[in-house]
Amino acid sequence: MEKINVLVVSPFEEKHQKRLDSDPRLEVIYRDRKQCENEAVTKADIIIGNPVKEQMKYAKNLKVLQLGSAGSDGFTEEGVLPSGCILCNASGAYGLALSEHMVAMTLMLMKKYPYYLKKQMQHQWAKGSKIKSIYGSVFLIVGLGDISSEFAKRVKAMGAYTIGIRRHVSNQLPDYLDELHPMSDLKQLLKRADVVTLSLPSTAETVHMFDWECFQSMKKEAYLINVGRGDVMKGQDLLKALEENEIAGAAIDVYEKEPMPEEDALWDQDNLIITPHIAGGYWLSETFDRFVEIALDNIDRYAQGKELRNVVDFKSGYRKYSKEG
Amino acid sequence: MEKINVLVVSPFEEKHQKRLDSDPRLEVIYRDRKQCENEAVTKADIIIGNPVKEQMKYAKNLKVLQLGSAGSDGFTEEGVLPSGCILCNASGAYGLALSEHMVAMTLMLMKKYPYYLKKQMQHQWAKGSKIKSIYGSVFLIVGLGDISSEFAKRVKAMGAYTIGIRRHVSNQLPDYLDELHPMSDLKQLLKRADVVTLSLPSTAETVHMFDWECFQSMKKEAYLINVGRGDVMKGQDLLKALEENEIAGAAIDVYEKEPMPEEDALWDQDNLIITPHIAGGYWLSETFDRFVEIALDNIDRYAQGKELRNVVDFKSGYRKYSKEG
Repeated sequence: MEKINVLVVSPFEEKHQKRLDSDPRLEVIYRDRKQCENEAVTKADIIIGNPVKEQMKYAKNLKVLQLGSAGSDGFTEEGVLPSGCILCNASGAYGLALSEHMVAMTLMLMKKYPYYLKKQMQHQWAKGSKIKSIYGSVFLIVGLGDISSEFAKRVKAMGAYTIGIRRHVSNQLPDYLDELHPMSDLKQLLKRADVVTLSLPSTAETVHMFDWECFQSMKKEAYLINVGRGDVMKGQDLLKALEENEIAGAAIDVYEKEPMPEEDALWDQDNLIITPHIAGGYWLSETFDRFVEIALDNIDRYAQGKELRNVVDFKSGYRKYSKEG
Repeated sequence: MEKINVLVVSPFEEKHQKRLDSDPRLEVIYRDRKQCENEAVTKADIIIGNPVKEQMKYAKNLKVLQLGSAGSDGFTEEGVLPSGCILCNASGAYGLALSEHMVAMTLMLMKKYPYYLKKQMQHQWAKGSKIKSIYGSVFLIVGLGDISSEFAKRVKAMGAYTIGIRRHVSNQLPDYLDELHPMSDLKQLLKRADVVTLSLPSTAETVHMFDWECFQSMKKEAYLINVGRGDVMKGQDLLKALEENEIAGAAIDVYEKEPMPEEDALWDQDNLIITPHIAGGYWLSETFDRFVEIALDNIDRYAQGKELRNVVDFKSGYRKYSKEG
């Protein structure tokens, strides 16, 4: 039987490589994504990781691209992947890291820790001020993939009231949600939320979706957290909302322009926490381990002719719905 | 029937006052704790809140002192309260605020947010670095009152492995703990922990209990969080542990000397988060509401001649054990 050519452009460690190398059905090579020769791309039946997009024109034999990211930006564009190639993302790998990040951002905003850190830098034992708690707060969780559902579970366990919003609302309410609504209810629901979280992919539907009207619909004492893609929200609208106290504060790990330009006025907003797109990535080893599990499972499914998991819908940029997904 | 004289030296809001004032068994007066006349103290059968300690010599008729704090520092000293006076603390009011604070500190240390906040102040989109997660980490939770048990519930729900330490180990393992050990096992258990939390009262047994040997027993990659009383740990030992990388980082809301002197070398430790004793207090309104519930319940119990709750043992400084406690 002919072997399946697998090109790994993701930083697999020895323990991960061992598992792939021991599979007799596969012929596996490992490359740095930025130093991969075109021939290796051409030969590959399966690519694991996020290759350089411009090199995809050489991917004549590609059957499966298993991305290492939750987002699939760029690879869904027409003509990037060869016809018939299946695109899979790493949804499921990032829920842990992102949800812990979102819990942290919620608490840092509610408890005003950035203020105390600045006081610490000045050697000042500051006075306290009023704070909020996750317990008893209403969370509006927009976009319900792996990341948001993991987040909802955590804040619900801490006593929050959780309202989910997603494109397709089924009749079944997951036990980590108190309510589930369709995207069309967004503006109405914003009025009830103490914390609004966004974890949406960048698609034609979502770009600049969170507009000025959304900020105005929010409570003045509410917080906003964006961990999905930066272009879901206009940076200028966020700045205005913070400057005009339309909202109490925000935390963003993503931005329209990354890296954020040094002269951007957002940097100096007291009630804004900016993290440089570090909530995800592979900064947590468990994230990478989980991605490897997804990749290995999909390679095995491909080898067995089974349906793959985490298949991305080229139109929406989301995962396709399947019985298993 | 003679009325019970209640002196409230705690900042009761109108909604709280209404509930006391409507009780026909009581004669209630409200005072600022620092501007309370001696006569009011002498007349009181019950004091609600933390009065000025030096004024307690006038408290000739006092039957119950219901503190508004979880700690009972000072009031357990011999001769401070009249003979036979029952001392109650507000344990149960602070678990929510403190446990959310401890979750936040854990995440801020694990995810290195103080570093990113400094980078934000410099308008720098920094690079990421390796982080840890609550999920999969081993927590050693020292002192298992209301605060620690609420904290254990939260991190357990987030996937942590929880080891509790308390003075008296019963056979029953609460469902938020994976293991429960006596205080004598502390040094042995420190070797296993990724995060160590201290929420202990200040008593003869606990002062400087967390010594240099404890720091040395900790893993070099572990974090320490102290939210109980500052004198449980020597500041100089903490400084040495951080400077010599005996531990990876720490977060303290309490210190031996409060306010921490401006010239203290701890202020500038990169891997230390200092908050100015703000995790508790009444900064969260829910904390005060919960304290009022405890106070009103104890007043009612006193009026009915029932056993009070949250009674402090004058010797240990802890709550006494009771069927309900």
